[in-house]
Amino acid sequence: IKTSSLALDAAERGEYRHYMLKEIFEQPQAIADTLDDRLSGTQLRPECFGNEAEALFADIKAVTIVACGTSHHAAQVARYWIEAFAGLPCSVEVASEYRYRHHVVPEQALFVTLSQSGETADTLAALRQAKQSGYRATLAICNVPESSLVRESDLVLLTHAGPEIGVASTKAFTTQLVALLLLTLALGRGRGIDETEETRLVGLLRSLPIKVEEVLRLDERIALLAESFVDKQHTLFLGRGEQYPIAMEGALKLKEISYIHAEAYPAGELKHGPLALIDEQMPVVAVAPNNALLEKLKSNLEEVRARGGQLYVFADYQVPLDESDGVTVIRLPETDDLLDPLVFTIPLQLLAYHVAVLKGTDVDQPRNLAKSVTVE
Amino acid sequence: IKTSSLALDAAERGEYRHYMLKEIFEQPQAIADTLDDRLSGTQLRPECFGNEAEALFADIKAVTIVACGTSHHAAQVARYWIEAFAGLPCSVEVASEYRYRHHVVPEQALFVTLSQSGETADTLAALRQAKQSGYRATLAICNVPESSLVRESDLVLLTHAGPEIGVASTKAFTTQLVALLLLTLALGRGRGIDETEETRLVGLLRSLPIKVEEVLRLDERIALLAESFVDKQHTLFLGRGEQYPIAMEGALKLKEISYIHAEAYPAGELKHGPLALIDEQMPVVAVAPNNALLEKLKSNLEEVRARGGQLYVFADYQVPLDESDGVTVIRLPETDDLLDPLVFTIPLQLLAYHVAVLKGTDVDQPRNLAKSVTVE
Repeated sequence: IKTSSLALDAAERGEYRHYMLKEIFEQPQAIADTLDDRLSGTQLRPECFGNEAEALFADIKAVTIVACGTSHHAAQVARYWIEAFAGLPCSVEVASEYRYRHHVVPEQALFVTLSQSGETADTLAALRQAKQSGYRATLAICNVPESSLVRESDLVLLTHAGPEIGVASTKAFTTQLVALLLLTLALGRGRGIDETEETRLVGLLRSLPIKVEEVLRLDERIALLAESFVDKQHTLFLGRGEQYPIAMEGALKLKEISYIHAEAYPAGELKHGPLALIDEQMPVVAVAPNNALLEKLKSNLEEVRARGGQLYVFADYQVPLDESDGVTVIRLPETDDLLDPLVFTIPLQLLAYHVAVLKGTDVDQPRNLAKSVTVE
Repeated sequence: IKTSSLALDAAERGEYRHYMLKEIFEQPQAIADTLDDRLSGTQLRPECFGNEAEALFADIKAVTIVACGTSHHAAQVARYWIEAFAGLPCSVEVASEYRYRHHVVPEQALFVTLSQSGETADTLAALRQAKQSGYRATLAICNVPESSLVRESDLVLLTHAGPEIGVASTKAFTTQLVALLLLTLALGRGRGIDETEETRLVGLLRSLPIKVEEVLRLDERIALLAESFVDKQHTLFLGRGEQYPIAMEGALKLKEISYIHAEAYPAGELKHGPLALIDEQMPVVAVAPNNALLEKLKSNLEEVRARGGQLYVFADYQVPLDESDGVTVIRLPETDDLLDPLVFTIPLQLLAYHVAVLKGTDVDQPRNLAKSVTVE
């Protein structure tokens, strides 16, 4: 019986050594599946959040998003999107913090929860509390149709990532980001987003699976890069704007499966403390998609170099930054700013995966962690 | 000349080996000085924020606080206070993030900046931007009367911490917390705080210098405790609620002056990733002031223990938690919940200080860091 279960396991993993790698490579399909049926020509299908969603969204004046772990990082990206594109104030909080404090419920606010499993204990408890607190409506973004979160929410948008077996979430995260872009679009209608802008954004969404395919071609390059991290105990991840939560997600992946103490900082905070930690034992990974960020980052990067820190910069195709002693630049294909958080997530997932493989950890079942945190 | 400057230096430090230690022990006086003239009998003096503040505060419907580094931690504590006591929505953001994103300005919002020096480049730039963005008014909480931040803000509340020489901020942080309690009180009037409650809160504020004196008596105990951290490269700090930013501040102090990679997590997030890092090389410091938190923390603490992690719990006097193999409990004097963030900060400052002294680092001038971050 054990043999056949292993055989089944191998069959499911197919050509891949681990579920995590399989799931990383399934992302173009998972994203396409999550977009499927939600778009119609150059427009969002308004009914994809449910028949009553369109009228309800028109009344919304604020958004609160509550989640845990990786889902909380997706929520933090969405805050930048919702404020910039839909012009609605958006507040994001860890579920275990939200539920235990006295918080003010904004008027006509939409309460959004994110969870792969839909059974995350703190997120579910926060939803139940929110339903008693005067929110206008609740929306769940979730990967499991029959989950408690889905059953108990007014509105639902399912991610179609398919089953995720690896404990470290990958395709669930990127499909959550896609769902949050759909939400931004739905909320932005009649606010910051007109028909032309909607057409542009829908075009970008449709291009996303191919962009992700392109980035996945960096796999071999990143497998080589991973060798520089194997003997390290620490890594610092830097990002700015909507790439700061992506830096957090990159750090979390490395923590979870390679047991390297990785921590993310918004790049502007480097001088307010973490710079003291930098030496040759602490490599720094910077997610630098565009020039505006890069100019600000450059002086920080020089300080990191001056202290002997090794720099690994993930940068847009055309960013004017050269490789030099101690500075490695990994180029990503050209994308629109809107898609950057999704596109830059992929190499960070691959980096964590390859470091873990080189270290020989149990990639799909890292020590101490469970797939769904269904207890508090 | 060098000798006389050293002699002057020694004279200023008095009996203390470092400015940082001197400044930690000056906190009862700095807090008393910051309260002085702001309280009258059992009430707050409404004019302490300026003559027009009382009428202006009555109009305020939301609060935005922007700061960097340690000041950002004080702001995060204030979010809990302002939402719970004044019933106003409060959003807190790192200055370098706030100024570079499209954000929504709430109606009738008060824009608050925090900075010891009043010259922090990103905070000052955020203030200048906010003044063009439709906020109702701007308020600076600052330690330097002649600073740019003070000159350019509509309202000012000065902390009276006196000059802070040590790069790692201590008394500036706790006096910022005091100033933020005064702000909570001023904003809470006519909202969540009635006269009886104001009398209670003012009484608590008046008791604060003596509470801090009491906690400082833990100095020797914590000097001994520091020996357990000297050979460690990592430390995890856990807190919940308004103690989560205090855990962040404790981790930052340890980073800044002892170069130990310390990171803080809200305790509920432990199972969503960082638990994978825990082994005998990663001590865990928990800030556990009250029973409600402790019940939730206990299962986490057991998991940490099961993985060989050493636990150091700072706990209220009456918390039912016993020392055992691998679990060290440091008792703090009984205080009201309101004062907990201030009171629990002190032993974490002392811990960072004593670890740094044992490691022989340059406590007052840690490598790579400047006292005021006046460049971006």
